[in-house]
Amino acid sequence: MSAELLYGTPCAEEILRETEKEMRGKSATLYTVGFGDPQWKQYTQALAKSAAQCGFAMNNVYLDSDAEVEAMREKVRKACAAKDAAGVLVEQPLPARFADVVNDIDKSLDVDCLSPLSVAALYRGENGFRPATPSAVIRLLDFYRIPIRGKRAVIVGRGNAVGKPLALMMLSRDATVTVCHTKTVDLAQICSTADILVSACGVPALIKSDFVADGATVIDVGLSFVNGKACGDVDTSVYGKCRAVTPVPKGVGPVTRAVLLENMLKAVKSK
Amino acid sequence: MSAELLYGTPCAEEILRETEKEMRGKSATLYTVGFGDPQWKQYTQALAKSAAQCGFAMNNVYLDSDAEVEAMREKVRKACAAKDAAGVLVEQPLPARFADVVNDIDKSLDVDCLSPLSVAALYRGENGFRPATPSAVIRLLDFYRIPIRGKRAVIVGRGNAVGKPLALMMLSRDATVTVCHTKTVDLAQICSTADILVSACGVPALIKSDFVADGATVIDVGLSFVNGKACGDVDTSVYGKCRAVTPVPKGVGPVTRAVLLENMLKAVKSK
Repeated sequence: MSAELLYGTPCAEEILRETEKEMRGKSATLYTVGFGDPQWKQYTQALAKSAAQCGFAMNNVYLDSDAEVEAMREKVRKACAAKDAAGVLVEQPLPARFADVVNDIDKSLDVDCLSPLSVAALYRGENGFRPATPSAVIRLLDFYRIPIRGKRAVIVGRGNAVGKPLALMMLSRDATVTVCHTKTVDLAQICSTADILVSACGVPALIKSDFVADGATVIDVGLSFVNGKACGDVDTSVYGKCRAVTPVPKGVGPVTRAVLLENMLKAVKSK
Repeated sequence: MSAELLYGTPCAEEILRETEKEMRGKSATLYTVGFGDPQWKQYTQALAKSAAQCGFAMNNVYLDSDAEVEAMREKVRKACAAKDAAGVLVEQPLPARFADVVNDIDKSLDVDCLSPLSVAALYRGENGFRPATPSAVIRLLDFYRIPIRGKRAVIVGRGNAVGKPLALMMLSRDATVTVCHTKTVDLAQICSTADILVSACGVPALIKSDFVADGATVIDVGLSFVNGKACGDVDTSVYGKCRAVTPVPKGVGPVTRAVLLENMLKAVKSK
């Protein structure tokens, strides 16, 4: 039995179509602030294409590599104060001393859930923007009608960008959630108990076929480059085994960008 | 085989002794703000005893039952502005419309980790106060030299007061963490995979002997009253089976109060 490939593109296109429709006659800008690390630039460039399709402008603010915290804070504040701003992103990851610059993102513009107020709302299950990548995982599951409630979800990775927020979001969708990481003993056995297995490690081919149950759905949030080729955390041996798996590329990535722009639309509507 | 009973009292006394020693010659006040629900009053009264032992005063501010959000916000602000304040607590739980009053607790006085800035620091694993009850669970495990790193922790309950913060804190201590709740299917089977099983539901006798592995440690954070008698989530049948279990009362409760006062000491020292 071969696994169904859960492509992100049809899900992303549906979200973008709806966003474009609702944005007609409106305009708004997504500000990004950062140093312009190559991976960040690649992300914002991919985002810019979908953004233009929906009628959003992008304004990327780059600081010199020797810029200090206060300088970045100033740029974030300026972006938040801009009349046309509907969303503000700060490059992630940044060196630890820059951690607090996200504190200045206005909650109403915090379309990727970076500021403490947004994080606290996510944690408490209150209204607010949710981060794009874990939201994309849940949107993909919903799009392909894979039930979450009462299911066992195993998340490999405990980072602030995916593992932790996704755990909280899957919990509020009534999954029973296990979070694994580098110190987990017997990772394969624990992963094999999952109805929904999500890997967000950035370790190529970490998830092998003995990690997955026959009926499982596998969501691959990893992104690494091996010999210049994009690949996820899931080994190709898994494709012959589980029920369904997201490919890399063309899996979670396009949905992440679409969800972020949908958050932009929400920001515009609540202005 | 009978389980070792992990009493909280010796652990709490150790913390209180150390706190008392370090507080000698100093003074500070813990402010509480709330409506004075009977359970909250009982908690603050128990706290007051240990507080006095350590040289802390308590100032309990009660609002009329018809008081509105702005009135409570004002009391919280006033408590934070008081010269003698080293900590400010807001009664939990409160009706949903009061959720935001904790936003006004100054981070340096937020000894039970209620405000968004504290919650975000907990979430991101940054410095800051951690909530007393989940901290007490970890302190008890450390006190009795029960290893956490690489172990499987199963937490029953996904509330904001215990389940969620404890999951994040156990993750940062390198446990592999599973969170179960009312929608979990086959709770007994999942619980039986735990090295450390924590129950924080408030459902008397929910955790039966078939929920626990022989070598497991069981931490009972539940507190209910049956025929006027305090009891936890763990059925007495468990006491004959697992390696160790915390009793209720005299388990996690006294450690929670001690940890809160230790947080007060930290607040005093960083003034």
